[in-house]
Amino acid sequence: MKSIRLYDTTLRDGTQGEKISFTAQDKLKVARKLDDMGIHYIEGGWPGASAKDFDFFQLAAKETFQHARIAAFCATHKHGSTPEDDRQLNVVLESGAPVGTIVGKTWDLHVTKILGIPLEANLEMIENSVAYLKKNGLEVHYDAEHFFDGYKENPEYAARTIRAAVAGGADAICLCDTNGGALPHEIEEITTAIREVIDSCTDRPIHIGIHTHNDSNLAVANSIVAVRAGATIVQGTINGYGERCGNADLTSIIPILQLKMGYACISEENLAKLQKVSLYVSETANMTPVNSRPFVGKSAFTHKGGLHVDAIMKEPRSYEHITPELVGNRRRVLISDMAGKGNIRYKARELGFPVDENGYDYAEIVNTVKRLEQEGYQYDVADGSLRILMEKLTDQFQPCFELESFRVTVEKEKDRPCRSHAMIKINVEGIEEITAAEGHGPVSALDNSLRKALNNVYRNVLDPVHLVDFKVRVLDGRDGTGAKVRVLIESRDEETIWSTIGVSEDIIEASWQALADSFQYKLARITNGNNQSVQEQGK
Amino acid sequence: MKSIRLYDTTLRDGTQGEKISFTAQDKLKVARKLDDMGIHYIEGGWPGASAKDFDFFQLAAKETFQHARIAAFCATHKHGSTPEDDRQLNVVLESGAPVGTIVGKTWDLHVTKILGIPLEANLEMIENSVAYLKKNGLEVHYDAEHFFDGYKENPEYAARTIRAAVAGGADAICLCDTNGGALPHEIEEITTAIREVIDSCTDRPIHIGIHTHNDSNLAVANSIVAVRAGATIVQGTINGYGERCGNADLTSIIPILQLKMGYACISEENLAKLQKVSLYVSETANMTPVNSRPFVGKSAFTHKGGLHVDAIMKEPRSYEHITPELVGNRRRVLISDMAGKGNIRYKARELGFPVDENGYDYAEIVNTVKRLEQEGYQYDVADGSLRILMEKLTDQFQPCFELESFRVTVEKEKDRPCRSHAMIKINVEGIEEITAAEGHGPVSALDNSLRKALNNVYRNVLDPVHLVDFKVRVLDGRDGTGAKVRVLIESRDEETIWSTIGVSEDIIEASWQALADSFQYKLARITNGNNQSVQEQGK
Repeated sequence: MKSIRLYDTTLRDGTQGEKISFTAQDKLKVARKLDDMGIHYIEGGWPGASAKDFDFFQLAAKETFQHARIAAFCATHKHGSTPEDDRQLNVVLESGAPVGTIVGKTWDLHVTKILGIPLEANLEMIENSVAYLKKNGLEVHYDAEHFFDGYKENPEYAARTIRAAVAGGADAICLCDTNGGALPHEIEEITTAIREVIDSCTDRPIHIGIHTHNDSNLAVANSIVAVRAGATIVQGTINGYGERCGNADLTSIIPILQLKMGYACISEENLAKLQKVSLYVSETANMTPVNSRPFVGKSAFTHKGGLHVDAIMKEPRSYEHITPELVGNRRRVLISDMAGKGNIRYKARELGFPVDENGYDYAEIVNTVKRLEQEGYQYDVADGSLRILMEKLTDQFQPCFELESFRVTVEKEKDRPCRSHAMIKINVEGIEEITAAEGHGPVSALDNSLRKALNNVYRNVLDPVHLVDFKVRVLDGRDGTGAKVRVLIESRDEETIWSTIGVSEDIIEASWQALADSFQYKLARITNGNNQSVQEQGK
Repeated sequence: MKSIRLYDTTLRDGTQGEKISFTAQDKLKVARKLDDMGIHYIEGGWPGASAKDFDFFQLAAKETFQHARIAAFCATHKHGSTPEDDRQLNVVLESGAPVGTIVGKTWDLHVTKILGIPLEANLEMIENSVAYLKKNGLEVHYDAEHFFDGYKENPEYAARTIRAAVAGGADAICLCDTNGGALPHEIEEITTAIREVIDSCTDRPIHIGIHTHNDSNLAVANSIVAVRAGATIVQGTINGYGERCGNADLTSIIPILQLKMGYACISEENLAKLQKVSLYVSETANMTPVNSRPFVGKSAFTHKGGLHVDAIMKEPRSYEHITPELVGNRRRVLISDMAGKGNIRYKARELGFPVDENGYDYAEIVNTVKRLEQEGYQYDVADGSLRILMEKLTDQFQPCFELESFRVTVEKEKDRPCRSHAMIKINVEGIEEITAAEGHGPVSALDNSLRKALNNVYRNVLDPVHLVDFKVRVLDGRDGTGAKVRVLIESRDEETIWSTIGVSEDIIEASWQALADSFQYKLARITNGNNQSVQEQGK
């Protein structure tokens, strides 16, 4: 089986994406995850352009990676200088990275019009820069910037830049579709042609790499087409992060190469980490995960229509192109306004909820869920609140506390920051508790005073409960500040995670609903001795 | 020039997407926009399966469309019945749509295992269903479900299903990659083969269509590859909306076919509406626009790195694969923590802001913007606040009001909804104004009382100001309810739109900052007689 090497540039080209930024420590954590999944090359940054990137290489040099070689990025040396005098090339040597990746110009337009230097000078800069890092013992990859655009306009000059990199001693030549404008058949033709160029000028085994951008929504296709035409290294980023429309998404490319095209990339066991790595990188980059992301997105194996749900029950591959577990994903059935009785029954089973035994009316549950979803609730992302709702609808709900009243106040004086405090009165098994607390903002104040009140009765039970995510979505922004708001809270204790939801025109009311459901859910599990998690049950 | 017909299924297959739903009126509005852009077929829904869809066809029948033919979707008639007795086929006839699209089974697995009917019976159902709609005067498209999966497992049976549709009189045969698992080279081979099958059994001109899903991140590539192999109709959805990972995205396919492959689809003038249509559909579906969406996304032509910005100033195509205006988009330069002096100067020019003339220190502006962006402000989406910030940093800021204090209170009693009110004291040119108001939630109460106070001085000036969007993003959800929050407000008057921003751990404080900037921005334009908009100036 032919093997393909994976070259991850999330930490370098990925950080060019709008809103993406990593600290050196973040980069190290991501690098460990990538290594653990079996990625072959990790490009950590551009040490000559960023002090933060240089810090990462210092940290990485102290680590032992199992699979990955760390690559440091730089450009060819400057015109009118020598590699020995070039700061960026020397910083790559100082970085301690075993691999140096040098980007150079392929497109005559860039050489003459943007850099304004002679075409011959560019060839020398490529050859000399590559040779300098080789001479100093590095594995050298040459990134041919704008390769396809350059080749289309001036194939002869483009080929000469590649020959220069080969002459310098490059171990790998990576063809870059920098602007993301090339089409699959062009990539195929040109990669095939350049394979011949390289083979005709050296007997050394030289890897061809492919680096694509998604400006034409073709980055993944262009990558796999290049592999079919002879590329053996694929560059890309986790989740396709990168500037403009992003880079080629490794979370799609890896399973396609491995599951659909028969190439060896990483082990089966490591492939099953794909979704986790995708989520880890999105969390570290503080980017909202894209549910519709192929292979690893939450909706990638989600079924909504009733006919499809029936069919996958009979035969999964009838509506699933691969087995979701191969990439660490799982099948989901949506409780949505298209949901029927079958979907609700499936969900009740998934939540481990005894709804069958009590002879309650499914139609009522279905109708209530439909009505609430029309109002803006979204139960497919709030299993905790869904369970409480189902308990309420089947008379199985036992409230651990009841609200009497609360009052939240936010005050501001001139340029000083706001101050928030809350007062709350609840009833716990006949006992009235009234407390007050401050907070970072009104919701935090409410959270603090509710905890204080509950703690008077349920001693220490809530101590391990942390709110790990708090999301606010304005449902229809067109109504301005009077718009309906959806608040989603994710809570965690030592063992499990649960999600709850609230919807209202008043953000405090919506937050209260989600907060109250979260504590209610936790306390019910303790008091009923039913401390099994939704997630565990869902498995 | 060969022409390709575009078949939009946003209103049918697109609504299978998680969170996507349209009313009949929404569908009509979207259909008008699609027609206006020159789309050839608009599939409005499945009238036999949804009363809402049937309503849409009733509305559409009263409209005159310039370019588009409306298509109604249904499945082949049921086993053991006849087309004449089949409710779904008859509802298509009643719908008044001039085009009927019938989906049928290609894959023997689905016929025998899911439906549990004989293979021959399925062929009859296809032929008879197509023939029935043809006989009743409709243009008939046959959607071959799971065509590529079926063909890979049993090419002979798959070809027989197509021959059955041809024998029934179908005008077009659409090959569907229903599960989204096919690869471009498979699509190419199989489409070529089926073109021969069709040509060998009839002399009638029959269009081949292609319908792909994005489960392998290849939907766009698979569509254009099919066109190269002979398909002349492309099905897809605006923004790629659709179940799981979505359908083929027409907002990518149209410019690729037209600008890069030389096919005629829609007029140049209509192509320039592409971004507007994309935004209109996302707004109607209440989906957040994806900034990184190829061609039409806000980031598709956004430049961040300083080197790239320099290069595009010299030569746009150095880092842009097409001219953004061809698809109605425009170039953006980001003010980000990677920003240098050049980017700030570009932005100041874009905002029409006299920052050069005053001899102020660029470095200070750059550093302040960098620091604030690290705290969570995002000035690339808040031109209104950026302008105010730049005015402040260059001593050109003239506040139209100053806050003395405010107090916001939210009260809740048992199960009754929250009640919010706000009291505010401001100073307008030496005069103190103190007002109070209620609202739908605390931010709305604050908005109302600020307007009331300002209205006492600036009579009627704020009447035309509406907040058209209100977005809340929790910056680091891991801090739970104490997390930092970013509030973004978009405001509009009769002439223009402006955006303002606030960041704080306290959502009320963050909302206040954005609200205050918004009114400040509007009042400054009035009082300085400078009523030119940021957007106009940006052109």
